[in-house]
Amino acid sequence: MNTNLFGERVVLMIPGPTELHPAVQRVLSTPIVAHYGPDWLPVYEEALKLAASIFKTNSEVFMMPTPGTVALETGVISLLEPGEKAVAVVNGFFSERLAEIGDHVGVNVVRVNAREGETVSPDKLDEVLKANADAKAVLAVQNETSTGVVNPVREYAKVANERDVLFILDAISSYGGVDLDFDGWGIDYCVGYANKCLGSIPGTVPVAVSGRAWDKLRNRRTKPASFFTNLNVWRRYIDEWKGIGHPYPTTISPHAVLCFKAAAQAALEEGLENRYQRHLRVAAAFRRSVRAMGLETLPSEAVASPTVTAIQLPAAVWKDAGKISQTMLKKHRIMIGGGIAALHGKILRIGHMCVTASTRYLVPTLAALRDSFNTVGLELNDGVETFMSEIAGKD
Amino acid sequence: MNTNLFGERVVLMIPGPTELHPAVQRVLSTPIVAHYGPDWLPVYEEALKLAASIFKTNSEVFMMPTPGTVALETGVISLLEPGEKAVAVVNGFFSERLAEIGDHVGVNVVRVNAREGETVSPDKLDEVLKANADAKAVLAVQNETSTGVVNPVREYAKVANERDVLFILDAISSYGGVDLDFDGWGIDYCVGYANKCLGSIPGTVPVAVSGRAWDKLRNRRTKPASFFTNLNVWRRYIDEWKGIGHPYPTTISPHAVLCFKAAAQAALEEGLENRYQRHLRVAAAFRRSVRAMGLETLPSEAVASPTVTAIQLPAAVWKDAGKISQTMLKKHRIMIGGGIAALHGKILRIGHMCVTASTRYLVPTLAALRDSFNTVGLELNDGVETFMSEIAGKD
Repeated sequence: MNTNLFGERVVLMIPGPTELHPAVQRVLSTPIVAHYGPDWLPVYEEALKLAASIFKTNSEVFMMPTPGTVALETGVISLLEPGEKAVAVVNGFFSERLAEIGDHVGVNVVRVNAREGETVSPDKLDEVLKANADAKAVLAVQNETSTGVVNPVREYAKVANERDVLFILDAISSYGGVDLDFDGWGIDYCVGYANKCLGSIPGTVPVAVSGRAWDKLRNRRTKPASFFTNLNVWRRYIDEWKGIGHPYPTTISPHAVLCFKAAAQAALEEGLENRYQRHLRVAAAFRRSVRAMGLETLPSEAVASPTVTAIQLPAAVWKDAGKISQTMLKKHRIMIGGGIAALHGKILRIGHMCVTASTRYLVPTLAALRDSFNTVGLELNDGVETFMSEIAGKD
Repeated sequence: MNTNLFGERVVLMIPGPTELHPAVQRVLSTPIVAHYGPDWLPVYEEALKLAASIFKTNSEVFMMPTPGTVALETGVISLLEPGEKAVAVVNGFFSERLAEIGDHVGVNVVRVNAREGETVSPDKLDEVLKANADAKAVLAVQNETSTGVVNPVREYAKVANERDVLFILDAISSYGGVDLDFDGWGIDYCVGYANKCLGSIPGTVPVAVSGRAWDKLRNRRTKPASFFTNLNVWRRYIDEWKGIGHPYPTTISPHAVLCFKAAAQAALEEGLENRYQRHLRVAAAFRRSVRAMGLETLPSEAVASPTVTAIQLPAAVWKDAGKISQTMLKKHRIMIGGGIAALHGKILRIGHMCVTASTRYLVPTLAALRDSFNTVGLELNDGVETFMSEIAGKD
């Protein structure tokens, strides 16, 4: 008997890529159009307006046809000169990645570390900035998917603003799913994403740049040593090629922009505050259910992410981590994530973003988790009932 | 009466994006899958094998989830150190772009120029290399879409090999449509593309790297000043993360890889030599028809591209270039390209790549061109009859 709950297709409950929003799937099946010209420009500009609404900004927004990493590198290369100092808040793989980008391009990166599953306090960041008065920027990640932690970036931005340094933020796995206010919080450079909380396809990355960041760029002593990851080049094409409907230095994927537009429209129709609340509520219910089953999450409730849950594996089943994931995948056709680097084999990671931040996806996931742990000899309690009562209690 | 020939949808007869291959369109409408894991890795590796077959190489091939420009920058940053000299063959916008990438990353770029519509001779390149004995690489573009010229890159590679310098090639708009032999010709770094002659979507770029190029990278005195456009980083992820089915430093688009695979399979089923011949034959017939109509192409027959035709506008209609394109677009629903930069308003550019390198697309284009020129007062001869007899004569 086929016991899987979703039919034959594997459903993605990983921290990205995320299941596509139905509106995105419809756009995907349309023929290709040109990514430039007078008919295209209004489409692109409408996508930028939607992207800006999700950033909550009146600052300039554009889109990069790349992974988020390339957009982050563009910010670091463009806004910091080789030898300049930046303070990086590091508490997992993706925040370390951002620091590592700084290392590669010659920035003097001072790391402020927290253990995995924990956050750096804003006071600690302030202390480090005080001790490094020559720092020019703070680098941070809003949602550290490697540990399921959401960082207090509003407070980090406040500290950066008070110390008069730029605040560069990776909001890749939180954009559209977790509270973010580019203008209100004083962020200077922020990278969002299409295929996490928006449920669009990878291939176009929204980027917001503050006036203060553009000023820093204009006042550099050296030129950014890149063609593509260089805001000066993007500036040139936005200014000079907008007239021919091509305000970017290369091809961008028309499908990716059209899908982004459909996904962003869906997000704004739901309402950003409603959407944040949905992710918060569903994630809290999921964590509560995981605990009711007899497991623990890696971060504490206070810093747990609304978009990804990191479940601690009891030491007794560390050796079986792969088997649990394989049972989820092969028997239940649900793909979940494991731990990265030091956490490999010690945690499971489950994404709940966009359409999967819902009862429809999380109830089967809880049922399948219980079954998959049972196959490696760990008997868990039921988590579904807890989830349903948590959700009911909050609606 | 609706006189357009393709129904309501605009057909792309521009030098990219190209109409999608039907196999690609089918893949596009499928749900998303994860871009990593044990089920994914064989899919990705199969895509690499297909990509290597089109490069005709046994060297290492990987895919970058970016525009071609980023893959070109990766080659330049990784294989040349700041201050090192490279000779760039420049005869249009895209070859100038490659030189410009060198400028941005601190390479000492020596340009060898030809006028637009012409090529630099291999002898001239050899002469410049001789005069610049400290040059470490030659940078060239196979197919200069801005002018409709195909460069003699086989000969350039020979010259570079004889002078013992690396040969870095942009084959973006020729890959899969024009003769290319990475191993046989002695190319060291080559960037192909998905959405030109293969008819796939933008979003994944095949890259081939020779053993000699990897040696040059290993023997650098300085580290490449980038995280993402840095072959050392790609090397690390290919080596260390292959075991977890994720041999790249970031997200890649699953749809883009799956579409690439479908498109490459279709190309190899047609046969590369058959495919080169089809593009050559159809392009020659198209140029002959354009001349029969009373127009001229920008390059001479000897250097005319098999994948894009640049038509010279008679000076009498320079002022009407926009109107001709608009008639093509609005009345006939066929999008064609105009001139870039210095050639703006002086040429039209028509792509014939993958499915559009065919009678089915080019006959309506010829008929629509004649009509569109007539609307600005230039009476042309029929081009369709010439095209049909040229094609018939060669089948």
